[in-house]
Amino acid sequence: MRDFTHDHSALALNTATLGHNLDGFGAGWSPEQVIDACAERGYGGITFWRRELAGRAADIGARTRAAGLQVVGLCRTPFLTGSLALPDDRAIMTDFYRSIDEAAALETGVLTIVTGGPEPGTKGVIESQKILADRVARAADYAAERNVKLALEPLNPATAGNRTCIMTAADALNVCDAVGAANVGIAIDVYHVWWDTTLAETLSQRAKGRILGYHLCDWLADTADVLLDRGMMGDGVADLKALRAAVESAGYTGLCEVEIFSANNWWQHAPEEVLDTIVERFRSYC
Amino acid sequence: MRDFTHDHSALALNTATLGHNLDGFGAGWSPEQVIDACAERGYGGITFWRRELAGRAADIGARTRAAGLQVVGLCRTPFLTGSLALPDDRAIMTDFYRSIDEAAALETGVLTIVTGGPEPGTKGVIESQKILADRVARAADYAAERNVKLALEPLNPATAGNRTCIMTAADALNVCDAVGAANVGIAIDVYHVWWDTTLAETLSQRAKGRILGYHLCDWLADTADVLLDRGMMGDGVADLKALRAAVESAGYTGLCEVEIFSANNWWQHAPEEVLDTIVERFRSYC
Repeated sequence: MRDFTHDHSALALNTATLGHNLDGFGAGWSPEQVIDACAERGYGGITFWRRELAGRAADIGARTRAAGLQVVGLCRTPFLTGSLALPDDRAIMTDFYRSIDEAAALETGVLTIVTGGPEPGTKGVIESQKILADRVARAADYAAERNVKLALEPLNPATAGNRTCIMTAADALNVCDAVGAANVGIAIDVYHVWWDTTLAETLSQRAKGRILGYHLCDWLADTADVLLDRGMMGDGVADLKALRAAVESAGYTGLCEVEIFSANNWWQHAPEEVLDTIVERFRSYC
Repeated sequence: MRDFTHDHSALALNTATLGHNLDGFGAGWSPEQVIDACAERGYGGITFWRRELAGRAADIGARTRAAGLQVVGLCRTPFLTGSLALPDDRAIMTDFYRSIDEAAALETGVLTIVTGGPEPGTKGVIESQKILADRVARAADYAAERNVKLALEPLNPATAGNRTCIMTAADALNVCDAVGAANVGIAIDVYHVWWDTTLAETLSQRAKGRILGYHLCDWLADTADVLLDRGMMGDGVADLKALRAAVESAGYTGLCEVEIFSANNWWQHAPEEVLDTIVERFRSYC
């Protein structure tokens, strides 16, 4: 039941938090079930994953808006660099454009970029950041014509071997600067940047108007698996209130999107319980 | 056999690279066997772990020097903050002083500090950095009187939940500044900082004369375990030559110490093979 005594309209759900249906985790809810459950609880929006759209992007977007929710974003582009990316530039760019088409069909404003890691045959991340900037620049106009903004998301250095070549907000802003397109910005996920003691200063000095997303979860002190053992807000060591203040001080007015990959804990719970817990924790810790 | 056609005297072995004997890994070599094998191959020095000294620190130090090798350092202090630290300040400081005594008995110049993570009951790392600085400051004179320098080693943010509250060279230097003791500096381990695109600038601007150690290995693109799946130099994505140049540009003239925790790969190899491989890779990649 929606709790009318509190306003959770700043809260959004990233559907990954309920488990990725196609991976055998989660309750196997349809997008429609997720939409209804979020609307019932007073959430402000939802971010979907491409795998959930299954050719029905326009319908799902319309249904979300009809329920009074924002379509906050779409996860995500293919890896644009590194050992996990598609085999060549043409294949990468083709799927990149396709992801933009899907974001446009969903009528969401933001498509998240998880960059991919160091390009095979190179050392360090600088060369890969240049390749990344080139590929993003080539897609930026295509995205702008479809009212889609591209959000470069820095990932925790733990994943810099193959999943990212931008590890900090500063890295992400450097790539934005290299791209130089008005519809390219950054996403800040507390899981990835909570440890960065220069974050608030970087955002305050360089990120005005460029933060396109803010993602919430927590970093567990005894994290067992960097990819799939994220914590619920309040269960970890991240200073969530300070992080939100840093993002909002840099002008971010969008929603706070909860994205918890948790194969052995939250993905094993009933989705209703997860959604209720998020509301409660958002109120107390974020 | 020592290869007199090349000079590897800049190379040091951290004994962890041959497996930690007490953990059931490695060949179970005694310190003396490690010393002889390193001397035979033209290594310049060795860093030991406290567990290997077993009350024989002075003998082991003397034996190392008699073999023509430097005693590069000792690993390490107890965790000084966080959920894995001893239960109270008194217990932490007692073992901290003991580790300094052991470094002094070994007659090594450098004792490495792995700080420990966020202090229970706090959020983020700033409070923990203050507690860390206080504890290091209280031990700094005691160490100086025993000719021991303390090296604050930033660890990869992947381990910031419970093993570190300093994640970058800048964090480590901030804590050094807060301590304000001439015998407190930093150690740079490529595994922990290879991803940091601001490292060279930070070292060049702030680390002159303050780098007390340089640790080598590699970050594997498909790292399976952040603690125990380190790569051999050349097998990963770190730009090792650029990292060494950054350290040396900041005035570091000490040895390059190879420290590879690799439970499922290198710790399963014969120590002779590991030592030979290190020499070859050091020549080609570092």
